[in-house]
Amino acid sequence: MSDTSTTTAISRRPNARDAKRAARTARGAASQPYIVRKIPRFEVLGEEGLAIIEDNADRILEEVGIEFREDPEVLEIWRKAGASVDGERVRMPRGMCRQLIREHAPREFTQVARNPARDVRIGGDATVFVPAYGSPFVRNLDEGRRYARIEDFRNFVKLAYMANSLHHSGGTICEPVDLPVNKRHLDMIYSHVKYSDKAFMGSVTAPDRAADSVEMAKIALGDRFMDPLTGRPNTALVNLINVNSPMTYDATMLGALKVYARANQACLVTPFILAGAMAPVTVAGTATQTLAEALAGMALVQLLNPGAPVIFGSFASSMSMQSGAPTFGTPEPALVLYVMGALARRLGVPFRSGGGLCASKVADAQAAYESAQTMLPTCLAGVNFVLHTAGWLEGGLTMGYEKFMMDVDQAGMFHTMLAGVDVTPNGQAMDAIAEVGPGKHFLGCAHTQANFETAFYRSPLADNNSFEQWDAEGALDMAQRANRQYKRMLEDYVPPPLDPAIDEALLDFMARRKAAAPDSNV
Amino acid sequence: MSDTSTTTAISRRPNARDAKRAARTARGAASQPYIVRKIPRFEVLGEEGLAIIEDNADRILEEVGIEFREDPEVLEIWRKAGASVDGERVRMPRGMCRQLIREHAPREFTQVARNPARDVRIGGDATVFVPAYGSPFVRNLDEGRRYARIEDFRNFVKLAYMANSLHHSGGTICEPVDLPVNKRHLDMIYSHVKYSDKAFMGSVTAPDRAADSVEMAKIALGDRFMDPLTGRPNTALVNLINVNSPMTYDATMLGALKVYARANQACLVTPFILAGAMAPVTVAGTATQTLAEALAGMALVQLLNPGAPVIFGSFASSMSMQSGAPTFGTPEPALVLYVMGALARRLGVPFRSGGGLCASKVADAQAAYESAQTMLPTCLAGVNFVLHTAGWLEGGLTMGYEKFMMDVDQAGMFHTMLAGVDVTPNGQAMDAIAEVGPGKHFLGCAHTQANFETAFYRSPLADNNSFEQWDAEGALDMAQRANRQYKRMLEDYVPPPLDPAIDEALLDFMARRKAAAPDSNV
Repeated sequence: MSDTSTTTAISRRPNARDAKRAARTARGAASQPYIVRKIPRFEVLGEEGLAIIEDNADRILEEVGIEFREDPEVLEIWRKAGASVDGERVRMPRGMCRQLIREHAPREFTQVARNPARDVRIGGDATVFVPAYGSPFVRNLDEGRRYARIEDFRNFVKLAYMANSLHHSGGTICEPVDLPVNKRHLDMIYSHVKYSDKAFMGSVTAPDRAADSVEMAKIALGDRFMDPLTGRPNTALVNLINVNSPMTYDATMLGALKVYARANQACLVTPFILAGAMAPVTVAGTATQTLAEALAGMALVQLLNPGAPVIFGSFASSMSMQSGAPTFGTPEPALVLYVMGALARRLGVPFRSGGGLCASKVADAQAAYESAQTMLPTCLAGVNFVLHTAGWLEGGLTMGYEKFMMDVDQAGMFHTMLAGVDVTPNGQAMDAIAEVGPGKHFLGCAHTQANFETAFYRSPLADNNSFEQWDAEGALDMAQRANRQYKRMLEDYVPPPLDPAIDEALLDFMARRKAAAPDSNV
Repeated sequence: MSDTSTTTAISRRPNARDAKRAARTARGAASQPYIVRKIPRFEVLGEEGLAIIEDNADRILEEVGIEFREDPEVLEIWRKAGASVDGERVRMPRGMCRQLIREHAPREFTQVARNPARDVRIGGDATVFVPAYGSPFVRNLDEGRRYARIEDFRNFVKLAYMANSLHHSGGTICEPVDLPVNKRHLDMIYSHVKYSDKAFMGSVTAPDRAADSVEMAKIALGDRFMDPLTGRPNTALVNLINVNSPMTYDATMLGALKVYARANQACLVTPFILAGAMAPVTVAGTATQTLAEALAGMALVQLLNPGAPVIFGSFASSMSMQSGAPTFGTPEPALVLYVMGALARRLGVPFRSGGGLCASKVADAQAAYESAQTMLPTCLAGVNFVLHTAGWLEGGLTMGYEKFMMDVDQAGMFHTMLAGVDVTPNGQAMDAIAEVGPGKHFLGCAHTQANFETAFYRSPLADNNSFEQWDAEGALDMAQRANRQYKRMLEDYVPPPLDPAIDEALLDFMARRKAAAPDSNV
């Protein structure tokens, strides 16, 4: 025990205290690789309304078209496939994109993780909760808001690994701005592999970074990277391809899309829409444009590599018509979400949208109202891949430590909600009612005793004590309790086992790639 | 202007500044007397599950029975109707309660307000938002938590009157504990009439207080109290009859129920259940017991006065299995809510449940998560009468000023959500998409200009500004902004017109009733 590294949280061995603490902090949700929903999905539009939107999306593709910028190869692919190409504008014959997707894109697929018990199913009745993505800033109660660093990134990977209610390690959980732009993807992927064993996302900011992501996934997965039955790579990466709405794919996104599609890695094609700026101000208009844009991207993936997995993404916020700022947790984006979920099911592809979105700068009531008003529709609409489940603040500019813990708690609750109502004899509980009878209480009856442990979702963050007890314990609000909780979790962190040969190979790959080019911040 | 009373908020005349302020604070929602929903309801259980619960509820009524305590008259009514009466235990033949309700209880009804434009429709596709009810404490950021006073009661009546998103003045918005228990109902009813023109609720704490409530409603409504067509009183009061779960009606509630039923005023029959204590720990068990208890109460109303309006109420919280404390915003009560909504529709009566419920002591993230996780299911489940829409804290022990404003804002959003998706040509916005095209923005296009004002719900409380602007403006959280907002609203309050003769008659009635008995706190 003279080696000081044994005292760090990362390398010390777990002990009984760790196990107890970990059980306590994670107890909100039972550990399961992903959720299989048992309740129906909520829909706001009937057949007629949905058919109008589909027809209009086809009209957009046929009459307005989509621009694919600075990528002659992609234009040539569209031309050969039968689309009309005018400069960078591509117009697709009615039904072409839909048909390509229906014929080739898998309805659901498995994303493999380096721990096979963590493989996630994406699509169908499965729901996968994923941390927030892309914030340059982090926030906690102690330091306020500051730029994110690789240490923050590692912290969030560790917290997501420990959170039973998150099924995925995510991607750019926050931007490690202390590392050069052209190399930070290496440290991010490495952190996902090193500090977690859950599935993760690849880099999309340049084609060579996408290629690096695939290489590192290959090293991390070892034998599991190739599917021996099909001779094709398994899908080990989900990759966020944002559309430059309205109706434009830029060269960066197309470059990453091509790398991932050809490597059989999943493209999460997401029109990123601030309604009123990048799309019409109406729900139906935003849904129509989102559908058209996503159809084009998912069809392109199928032209590049028929059968490669895609996820239909939708990110739509409303807008303050006074300031132009994006607004979240408002009713219009929730309505868009329900409509897009229905459209994705009709198309037959996995769906991504929603998450714990909010505009609030801090983890206050605004953050919570807005996040809940996005996450509940997300779960009811049947979203399969829930990016931004935990941590999101300030329209995605900031990753909040306390907010992360709150959202993890909420995600735990959705496990119970999506499991629906038990109507077995134990669920009906008629024996309990007969045993207890009028005017008595159920606390001690046999049925209550038998169901005591699992009866209700138990939040590790909510304070349900009496006012007096809460006051005596310091009158902490939820953010203050979350602050304590995330620090304790990081203290208790114990890394998952990693084959030293894989670790070495990853470090070696990173060293070579870092040496191959000077640092750059573009 | 020498009369100092003209400087009080209550009696001064409105001016242009008032109008502007009032428009600003209330702009979150358009003023409408109630919501008519245009989106479907969400259900979690199919026919089979619901039929099991209905059958089990009938078994409870038939085999276990319900106790009606210290009320021989009620027992005699049940006996004459064909029920089996054993001591205070009443067992109803299978289907008897359901049949009485189906035959006689109105599927929906109108509650008249003293301003006819504020009449509310209760049942069917209508949703009515009502303030929280029953807290002995109030809380604001300045004073913390303290006992409520009649001044607080008046404040909340004024705030509810000014809030476009609330359709109702509520009942015991908070307990004015500075007034004697046996007389405070008079001041509460008077405040509802004097400071608002929205519909309100009667007292249920003793039969004579219920009778006083009816008398005061009669004075307030004048000609509108009687329906000239039927010769029966209009329904001017909704009255909260809580069941003493499990399976017990006490003498106080029965006394109030009888007064209101006979006066054709609405009985909101609500089993009040902390699952695990007053009902089984399971969702289906809680739903079954709630249905059985409510069926008995609503059937009793029909035996007393066939056709008298009832509302099927359900209040079910989960419980901390560690402390026994009620917990809110958890998934199990939401599942109960969806099930009860479906059961109420099958029965064919208006439904009450949910609201902005939470266990949090303060208006923090916990309060918001929990409230949103109750209110959204409330709206999706099709609740008609949403008691506790605004203000609720600490399991109902505290009425929060800031929380009230936050919930009013949320209620505004639900107006938009329940209006659903516009798929008219303007909603489809195809002209906008054709006009703008790839890579441009929609801010200046004709469609955006035409829809600018009403495009998105505009929250008067959310801060969507940049971090820098928010920081420069004091870095306030939502509770701090709500604190400013409620004070400004109270400053801007202008009372609705009230016929001086009615005012005088009410004051006279109160004076006589107060003189008739000594003050008492029981």
